[in-house]
Order: sequence, then C-alpha cells, then structure tokens
Amino acid sequence: MFTAQPIGFVHSPYQETSAIPKGLGARHDAEGAIELLREYEPGLADIEGFSHLFVLWEFDRADGFDLFAHPPSDEGRPHGVFATRSPRRPNPIGLSVVQFDGFDGPDQLVVRFLDCVDGTPLLDIKPYRPTTDAEPDAAMGWLAPHATRNANTDRS
Amino acid sequence: MFTAQPIGFVHSPYQETSAIPKGLGARHDAEGAIELLREYEPGLADIEGFSHLFVLWEFDRADGFDLFAHPPSDEGRPHGVFATRSPRRPNPIGLSVVQFDGFDGPDQLVVRFLDCVDGTPLLDIKPYRPTTDAEPDAAMGWLAPHATRNANTDRS
Repeated sequence: MFTAQPIGFVHSPYQETSAIPKGLGARHDAEGAIELLREYEPGLADIEGFSHLFVLWEFDRADGFDLFAHPPSDEGRPHGVFATRSPRRPNPIGLSVVQFDGFDGPDQLVVRFLDCVDGTPLLDIKPYRPTTDAEPDAAMGWLAPHATRNANTDRS
Repeated sequence: MFTAQPIGFVHSPYQETSAIPKGLGARHDAEGAIELLREYEPGLADIEGFSHLFVLWEFDRADGFDLFAHPPSDEGRPHGVFATRSPRRPNPIGLSVVQFDGFDGPDQLVVRFLDCVDGTPLLDIKPYRPTTDAEPDAAMGWLAPHATRNANTDRS
C-alpha cells in the first residue's frame, strides 16, 4: 500500500473544523482555493474547460477512526461510518465536488463548495464527468428525511 | 501523512487492466462486488437505503506516476494527469460512482459500474448525496467532443 503525499494545500475561510457548516442543508459556497506544489503544476494542463472537479484531501485533523459516526444532521444518532461522510474513517480521505472558477496564478485554482479546513493537505484532483458521476435521482437512505427538512428550512 | 490500509477488496469480471472497457462511451455495467474485511463490517450499518455510493480504491497495478496521461479516448494525445482519470497519479487513488444493488452476505456489497481490476484493494466507501454530488450539467473540457461522439455511437 502507498503512503499519501501532499500535492498541495487547500485555502478556505474555515480556520477550525468547528467553523465548517455541517449537515445536509449547510452552505459551503464560500470561495476557496487549491494551491498545487510547483512540481505538480504541469499536471493541470487542459483542466480549464471542466466546470466541476473532484477534490480529494487528507482529514489531517481527524483523531483516528470510529466504525460509528454521530452526524449532527441526525442529532448525533449513530450510523456506520461508511454510511456517513465523517472525517474519522479508516483511510482519512475527504472528497468534495467543487465548482472550478478558473486560475489565480499558474498553480492556484479558485473553487466553490469546498468543505474542509484551511491548510488541509491535498491528495488529488480529478475531472468531474457528468456521464458517469452525476446521479441526480440517487436515493439518500437515512439522510433522506433530513434532506427534505433542510430543503423546507431553506425555502422558509 | 497516513499510510493507506485496505479495508477490503473488489471483485470484478476484469482480471487484467487491459480488459476494462476504456473511454467515455465505455460500458462498465457488469456486476461486481465489494468485500469488506470482517473487522470493518459494523461500519456498513445504515448503508442500505443509498442507491449510489462512492468507492475509493488503490490503483495497485499502476507503476509510479506521470504528470501527463495519454488517454485512449483522445487517441493518446497528452493531457495533464489532473485533467484525466489515469491510474498513474501522485496518490494512486481511484474513484467510481457505483450503483448499490444490495448485500450478498453481511460483508459483501453487490454493485454496478465499478471500473477496476479484480482483487483491487478497497480504501473507502462513502454515501452519494445528490444534493452536493450530482452536477448533471457540468462542462467536460477536452472530454466534451469525445462524449458527444461516443453518445452518437451509442445511439447508432
């Protein structure tokens, strides 16, 4: 197995994990940036035309893992960690679908919807392909009633 | 940084990387399975109601990385690795959105659309949330003309 290597770092408005809006109705539309280490910069060639990207990072503030998570969106009730997006996972890899708003310098990508802490180590960037990655009608299991509730809240 | 640990293994019909259908129009609808190591099984609690999952794995057959990939969908023309889904990445992490078709025993998940080799080490499973993960109108950059071409081919 491999040892993870940072290819860059994330800049976000969230200085602490507690500052990240949590739960399904949470808004992460604050602008953030992804900064690649200079040696990896050539790997960004031809990324311009993608409107959305997968960003993978290390949950480097997570303290070990737990097979049960207690997500705030369900008032702390336990769910298996693989049925949640909890940071305390066996492999501490985080994943966001972000909107890519262009470059700010050759090694800095301006993005939206990135829900991680400022300074988080970046592991990977992948192009988002709606042909294989978009499932707008996917069923959300235990999250579904909370999604409805939050949607109602958002409208009110 | 962390060292990746397998939490299970993937069973797929593809015995060699060369057997995996490549490119945007490729069909990966063969059924596969994800088998968790017994110690991680409790982490699957409440995953039943999700119709789609993110599956993360290690590209364990990849031989190092290259900042440029030469994807078959563009006839081998070079693109920055972060603008492709090439296995030869700085952190060799693979990602698929799969359809979850239920359990076959307590530690085995039956899935569709998994495009990796039989025996691949599993790193993580995450629930797919259409509220944050589905972007059906995302623009596909250099892949777009190929997507159109493949879609036309599929219809003919």
